[in-house]
Amino acid sequence: RLLRIGLIPGDGIGREVIPAGRRILEALPSSLGLKFEFTDLDAGFETFQKTGAALPERTVDVLKNGCDGALFGAVSSPTKAVKGYSSPIVALRKKLDLYANVRPVKTVATAASPIDMVIVRENTEDLYVKEERTLEDPAMGGVYAEAIKRISTRASLRIATMAGEIALRRQKLRESGFASIHKSPLVTITHKSNVLSQTDGLFRTCAKEALAASRFVDGGVAVEEQIVDSMVYKLFRQPGSYDVIVAPNLYGDILSDGAAALVGSLGLVPSANVGEGFAIGEPCHGSAPDIEGKGVANPIATLRSTALMLEFLGEEQAAAKIYTAVDANLEEAKLLSPDLGGKATTEEVVSDILKRL
Amino acid sequence: RLLRIGLIPGDGIGREVIPAGRRILEALPSSLGLKFEFTDLDAGFETFQKTGAALPERTVDVLKNGCDGALFGAVSSPTKAVKGYSSPIVALRKKLDLYANVRPVKTVATAASPIDMVIVRENTEDLYVKEERTLEDPAMGGVYAEAIKRISTRASLRIATMAGEIALRRQKLRESGFASIHKSPLVTITHKSNVLSQTDGLFRTCAKEALAASRFVDGGVAVEEQIVDSMVYKLFRQPGSYDVIVAPNLYGDILSDGAAALVGSLGLVPSANVGEGFAIGEPCHGSAPDIEGKGVANPIATLRSTALMLEFLGEEQAAAKIYTAVDANLEEAKLLSPDLGGKATTEEVVSDILKRL
Ligand SMILES: CC(C)[C@H](C(=O)O)[C@@H](O)C(=O)O
Ligand SMILES: CC(C)[C@H](C(=O)O)[C@@H](O)C(=O)O
Repeated sequence: RLLRIGLIPGDGIGREVIPAGRRILEALPSSLGLKFEFTDLDAGFETFQKTGAALPERTVDVLKNGCDGALFGAVSSPTKAVKGYSSPIVALRKKLDLYANVRPVKTVATAASPIDMVIVRENTEDLYVKEERTLEDPAMGGVYAEAIKRISTRASLRIATMAGEIALRRQKLRESGFASIHKSPLVTITHKSNVLSQTDGLFRTCAKEALAASRFVDGGVAVEEQIVDSMVYKLFRQPGSYDVIVAPNLYGDILSDGAAALVGSLGLVPSANVGEGFAIGEPCHGSAPDIEGKGVANPIATLRSTALMLEFLGEEQAAAKIYTAVDANLEEAKLLSPDLGGKATTEEVVSDILKRL
Repeated sequence: RLLRIGLIPGDGIGREVIPAGRRILEALPSSLGLKFEFTDLDAGFETFQKTGAALPERTVDVLKNGCDGALFGAVSSPTKAVKGYSSPIVALRKKLDLYANVRPVKTVATAASPIDMVIVRENTEDLYVKEERTLEDPAMGGVYAEAIKRISTRASLRIATMAGEIALRRQKLRESGFASIHKSPLVTITHKSNVLSQTDGLFRTCAKEALAASRFVDGGVAVEEQIVDSMVYKLFRQPGSYDVIVAPNLYGDILSDGAAALVGSLGLVPSANVGEGFAIGEPCHGSAPDIEGKGVANPIATLRSTALMLEFLGEEQAAAKIYTAVDANLEEAKLLSPDLGGKATTEEVVSDILKRL
């Protein structure tokens, strides 16, 4: 099978970690029967400064018409508001209808308090519709601004269905001996319907409805809910109790950074932006201007994102190879990047992991 | 000085902890020259079920016209959407224009990794304006709902000013020997202006402007900013680095529960809803249906909220007495409630702390 992969390094350390994704794909054993074709694509703040567009049309076209999947690095946020600039990854998620942002957060199996959860974040709506306006009214004390938070039945049903499918898939992996904390699959619905009864109320109702489908019930998927503030509290007090967490866009954004803190570094946490038959792997970390150009960025979030992309393109076996190689590097704990307390460079970590494939 | 205090226990363990607040006020040494007059007031889900109003008009009237401050316990959120019900504390904050929600989160001074920060949450707008509507459109796949997130110049300026004042006040306390991690005052502005350039962008600009006032600059208040997702990450990775965090309503809600997790229990964390010359102390925890009626709720969040209310009513000395008594109980660690791993009842913890006044 030939897979055509777009490579969008973006800004900052995005340029240092995306090449690692390409290398691990090229290094996969030929017995898997996979071939790859790569296309370099532009996006990001630097692209914006050069061309006036943070997400060039060509990038969207090539992804839509000439790619099966992609890897996205990171983008810098300008330190001051810049007219006409807006985040290319947020735009890409919407343009390709990549409706789910899937973020597995796990420690290695040998960790003292093992954590193994997946945050499934709705990826197209909520406050990310970015419909804002600025108004002025003396009765309001002058200038004020409003943004729309939009939650739809359709997006809520499909993201909860995705969460249910992931819970079932994890259950299968568990049954085949994959280490995990939970005996049975659990989806935790997160919302703030005690304040937002219509929007988050709709998310809650739809999620419950989707997860009441017989394939989930028969598959033993338990369902619970958690108000977002208390979810953050519990995430830190008892992270081992969670399996799959499903949340609207903004809460999902916040929860996944929180969960990343639990496993020691954002440099470990992958994500995939998933739509119908398309996936973009994206490390959860940002462009990290503080370490840019030093060659010490942790490539693991990107390597795991590459595996996650493969999973959603139906190549679970290839994905498993990458996960195992990464875990072996972490368990040995000899070649670790500085964010994990080690001294290894990006290059040293990558070669160590490639050797273990 | 006579202080007239409204007591609003609300639901669940609110009824078990608010009496502790009253008792500690009554037990304050007479040398402080304070007298208290208490009025019992209704609010909450049970009140709603009995009377059809979660926040009776009488409660608001008495608070406005016959009280100097109040203590609020907790309210139950109904497990299903209930027509006509909406959170009385959210309504109260708006009706009394209690524009700041101040949430100090600290460990005892003897903790291995001391934490000592205050989260200053805007308390009247953002998504809490609760302007929602439900619509239907085949192009959107059917039913969807929208909520307004509103951010105003006025509310953003005044909350950031409050954060600056608190940073200065903490600095004074430090100089007089109050233990703390920071050498110098720091305000961290939290927002998501990389996505919400107008609303959160306005919050960011206003907060920076307010904190650039010469009284803060001359007082040595440093200012930094942090995107909310990365704020949650850093809160958990390096909690000791924060002093005062200022945030719009919803982020403040989430951050303060997250910070509470860091100090071991929500049962320790107080808050005050503060307006011009009025303050309502409110423990950060909820109505805790799981332990309701067992007499084991931790009263400390309420006792500290009582102190915090006194602080904002200008009675810093009385507040300090309460803080010291609570800290002494925690440092001795003999009479602790179950949330802290102890076996003491609410009553035992309260009497221990009263003895130490
Ligand atoms: C860069 C930013 C727009 C983005 C988001 O908020 O989605 C990032 O935080 C992420 O989680 O991918
Ligand atoms: C009960 C709820 C409406 C409330 C809020 O969101 O403000 C609570 O979480 C709090 O923090 O006081």
